[in-house]
Amino acid sequence: MKHKPGKKIKVNRIPERGFYDSETINKIIDEALYCHISFIQDGHPFIIPTIHARMNDHLVFHGAKASRLLEQISSGEEIAVSFTILDGLVLARSVFHHSMNYRSVVIFGKGKLIENKIEKLTALEAITNHILPGRWNDARKPNEKELNATSVVSVKIDEASAKIRSGPPKDEEEDYDLPVWAGVIPFSKKFEQPEEDLKLKSGILLPDYIDKLIKSKS
Amino acid sequence: MKHKPGKKIKVNRIPERGFYDSETINKIIDEALYCHISFIQDGHPFIIPTIHARMNDHLVFHGAKASRLLEQISSGEEIAVSFTILDGLVLARSVFHHSMNYRSVVIFGKGKLIENKIEKLTALEAITNHILPGRWNDARKPNEKELNATSVVSVKIDEASAKIRSGPPKDEEEDYDLPVWAGVIPFSKKFEQPEEDLKLKSGILLPDYIDKLIKSKS
Repeated sequence: MKHKPGKKIKVNRIPERGFYDSETINKIIDEALYCHISFIQDGHPFIIPTIHARMNDHLVFHGAKASRLLEQISSGEEIAVSFTILDGLVLARSVFHHSMNYRSVVIFGKGKLIENKIEKLTALEAITNHILPGRWNDARKPNEKELNATSVVSVKIDEASAKIRSGPPKDEEEDYDLPVWAGVIPFSKKFEQPEEDLKLKSGILLPDYIDKLIKSKS
Repeated sequence: MKHKPGKKIKVNRIPERGFYDSETINKIIDEALYCHISFIQDGHPFIIPTIHARMNDHLVFHGAKASRLLEQISSGEEIAVSFTILDGLVLARSVFHHSMNYRSVVIFGKGKLIENKIEKLTALEAITNHILPGRWNDARKPNEKELNATSVVSVKIDEASAKIRSGPPKDEEEDYDLPVWAGVIPFSKKFEQPEEDLKLKSGILLPDYIDKLIKSKS
C-alpha cells in the first residue's frame, strides 16, 4: 500500500528524502524500540515516549488505565507518532552541510480503546514480543486484576511518511580542497551482556531468545 | 534551580520516578543526541525529531528558514520537547512488571527567532559542538548566504521534569519462584569506526576530537 502524501505528512524540505510506501514505513516502525506520541490536551501540545507494536495497519500502545497518555489516545482525538532511528553523524567540510544519517517515520491517527479481552491480550503479546521476540511465551501472562489495571489502545495509521538520509556528506565544490576531515561516524544500538536479577532462582539459564537478541543487535 | 512541577509537567504515575531539579534535567538534555518537538498547527498535533543544544536555561534549534518546524517554533506558540535515553530492558517474571530503564525529560517553552548575527553563530556553535565537541573550530564556518538560509530559535525552558527508572525488575512476591529468567539487558549507544569520505584529500588524519568521541561513547 502506498500512503497518499497529504499536506500534513508531505516531506517538503529535500523531497527526495521522503518515502510513502508501507514497506519502507513499516520496516522503520518495526525496528524502532520505542516512539514518541504528540497530542493536544486543554489546548497544550504534549509529548510522551512509549513502546509500541504494529499490527498490520494499526499501532497498539498500552499503559496504566489512569495514565494521561492512554486517556488521551483512547478519547479518539488525533495523535501524531514519531519513530526515529539514528544511523550516523555526517561530517561535512562546512558546518552548513553537517547532517545525520537517520530513518524516521511520522504517522497520524486516532485511537480506540480495545475492550475485548482476547484482542487486548493479543495486542499485549505483540507489544511484548516487539521488544523481545519470544518473551510473551516465557513470562507469566497478565491475570484479571493486571488486565483490568491496563489500558490498551489501537490507532489506525491514517497518514504516514518516512524520511531517510543515508550516505556520505555532500559539500560545496570549492570546499573539497579544505584540510578538514569529512565522512560518516556510524551509530548503532547495542545490547550488552544481561545482568541477572540477584533474586533469580538458581538453575535458570539465559533463554536462547535473549541470547539471540544480544547477538543480533550488537 | 528547582522547577516547580505544574500540572502539565508533574509525574503522576509512579511519582518516585519524577525529578524536578535542573541538575538532573540538564544532564539528560545534554547527553541526548537529539530530541522530539511536539507542536500544534491548524489544530493538529505535529511531531518532529531534531538536534538541539542547551545554553543555560534555554534550548536552541536550527533549520532551514523555510521549514515548518522553524516557522512554528519562532511563532512563539508553546512547544513541548522530549529527550529520551534508553538504558535497558527490564525483564520481570510477569509480563505486567516488564519495563525499561530510561532517563527522559519533557520541557515546555515558547520560541523566539534569534536575529542577532553573533548570537546566531554562538547558538550554531553550541548545536555543532553538542553533537561533536571540537567540530565547530575545525569545519568551515557558515558564510552570509548560509546564515541567511538558516533559522535559529531559542526556547526558554518554562517548565521541565525528568522521569527516570533504573535498577532490577520488581515482581509480585509469589512470582519469585517461577522458572522464568529475570534481569536487565543493558542498552548502550555506540559509535563505530568512522568511514572516511571517498573524496577526502589525502594526508588528512582523523582528528583527536573524533577519536575521543568514539572511545567515550562505545
